[in-house]
Amino acid sequence: MPDQAKTLDPETRAAVAGGFTDAPFVNDVGIAMLDCGVGWCETSLALAARHLQHTGVVHAGVQATLADHTAGAAAITMVPVGHHVLTAEFKLNLLRPARGASLWCRAEVLKPGKTIMVVESEVYSMDGDKRVLVSKLTATLAVIAPK
Amino acid sequence: MPDQAKTLDPETRAAVAGGFTDAPFVNDVGIAMLDCGVGWCETSLALAARHLQHTGVVHAGVQATLADHTAGAAAITMVPVGHHVLTAEFKLNLLRPARGASLWCRAEVLKPGKTIMVVESEVYSMDGDKRVLVSKLTATLAVIAPK
Amino acid sequence: MPDQAKTLDPETRAAVAGGFTDAPFVNDVGIAMLDCGVGWCETSLALAARHLQHTGVVHAGVQATLADHTAGAAAITMVPVGHHVLTAEFKLNLLRPARGASLWCRAEVLKPGKTIMVVESEVYSMDGDKRVLVSKLTATLAVIAPK
Amino acid sequence: MPDQAKTLDPETRAAVAGGFTDAPFVNDVGIAMLDCGVGWCETSLALAARHLQHTGVVHAGVQATLADHTAGAAAITMVPVGHHVLTAEFKLNLLRPARGASLWCRAEVLKPGKTIMVVESEVYSMDGDKRVLVSKLTATLAVIAPK
Repeated sequence: MPDQAKTLDPETRAAVAGGFTDAPFVNDVGIAMLDCGVGWCETSLALAARHLQHTGVVHAGVQATLADHTAGAAAITMVPVGHHVLTAEFKLNLLRPARGASLWCRAEVLKPGKTIMVVESEVYSMDGDKRVLVSKLTATLAVIAPK
Repeated sequence: MPDQAKTLDPETRAAVAGGFTDAPFVNDVGIAMLDCGVGWCETSLALAARHLQHTGVVHAGVQATLADHTAGAAAITMVPVGHHVLTAEFKLNLLRPARGASLWCRAEVLKPGKTIMVVESEVYSMDGDKRVLVSKLTATLAVIAPK
Repeated sequence: MPDQAKTLDPETRAAVAGGFTDAPFVNDVGIAMLDCGVGWCETSLALAARHLQHTGVVHAGVQATLADHTAGAAAITMVPVGHHVLTAEFKLNLLRPARGASLWCRAEVLKPGKTIMVVESEVYSMDGDKRVLVSKLTATLAVIAPK
Repeated sequence: MPDQAKTLDPETRAAVAGGFTDAPFVNDVGIAMLDCGVGWCETSLALAARHLQHTGVVHAGVQATLADHTAGAAAITMVPVGHHVLTAEFKLNLLRPARGASLWCRAEVLKPGKTIMVVESEVYSMDGDKRVLVSKLTATLAVIAPK
């Protein structure tokens, strides 16, 4: 469970933010970072017609992109400066049809580690006051030291 | 193991093809269906800068979108006409950095079923003659009867 | 999130308890049910030498058996009387080496459903006052109606 | 795809075999190694009443133990002598009810690596001439160097 009060150093925060602004596919999809701290990250995505399946619900690939990238960002908050992380694998459970004005995602590190980190992400659909858990991801990430 | 020689009826083939042309996010990403048969489907994606991570490799979300949608299409080839499928969960293993001119994906039904189907997708990066397995997905899909 | 205060009807409680006493492998391993309610179940296992890997830590198969069976029991608390559940798939993350006097497991239904349920189980190693999260499982279960 | 003809050095073969004879839970369940080579391992388990669920089918925990341990053995065939492996996570898909006289399992390394290996295991139920695929596991293993 991340300690919400624990402050993230500015260099790490900049590395996390850069992981969003510098990733072409994340920009292409429209994902924005909201906030992050030691062991966690929160993001959102304003939904448009192009994010949907032919059935009118948000495509699983959109949810996977949001949940995986937010998980990677949460992991970055706990690695030494200069290190980065690579997703080795993830599992995504699609719990309910995702509809609404936007998606909101929170990732938390379940197990930090020097070489492997495990992170969980929850994705919620937001529609006015209504917030519904639509999918949950568990990811295993490899920590990569600078060369 | 799908029987490559077994012919798919035209109505089912049209339903599978429609699942690509009618899905906004699949079009937005640029995924194209190549071919399908009873229990399998093949797709490809011409890679562009917008599909990448900031590290220059293809984003996991792109691979997940390609592998999941192709898995769903393979499942559709084995359900009664009028039924559709919903991904309940999938796991994606990212095996090697994905780079190159395009991605190629083949999905095969591992276990057909009346209510649940299990499908595997393999994603390869293609660069000239070079073909490299970059990720593998296993998905559980629910079969939905028409109302 | 299960409502701890919500009472489980006696018939369902008996079905859950019977799912432990009547399952030969669960008895063979030595798993005991502690308590259950609507959407959750708790179990424990007194550790012995026979549960270990050659490295002295508890075998992943022991943890999988405990976490999967407890997940199934949690699901049973939310299906109509006479229905049962079958695990379609599960993922187990092994977070830390499992050692100690016993394992304790709590499973909670993440998403109830008429045909598919998603359940999470956490496994802790217990040694005196020390409680450590050693593994976490996510399972997809199919709900089976009586014939 | 492992090269069946490639010979395994005697020291590595002994390490793999020892991973079965020295693991208490594997002996307790009754798993036996049949053969192994570079990138693969095969095992079997003679089924008894104690391996079952209350429904008469083989417990998922038995299949997980067999598939996970065989995956670890396949990984050991590809790490330097003196290294060992630890399962970081696995996913098990239960495809069909497992019944019969015995289970047979084959694990193959899908992606070897210096720090992380991905291995797949298939479990078959055997009854006379009849061989049925009952479950499939995908595991991520960490390679541990000697201290």
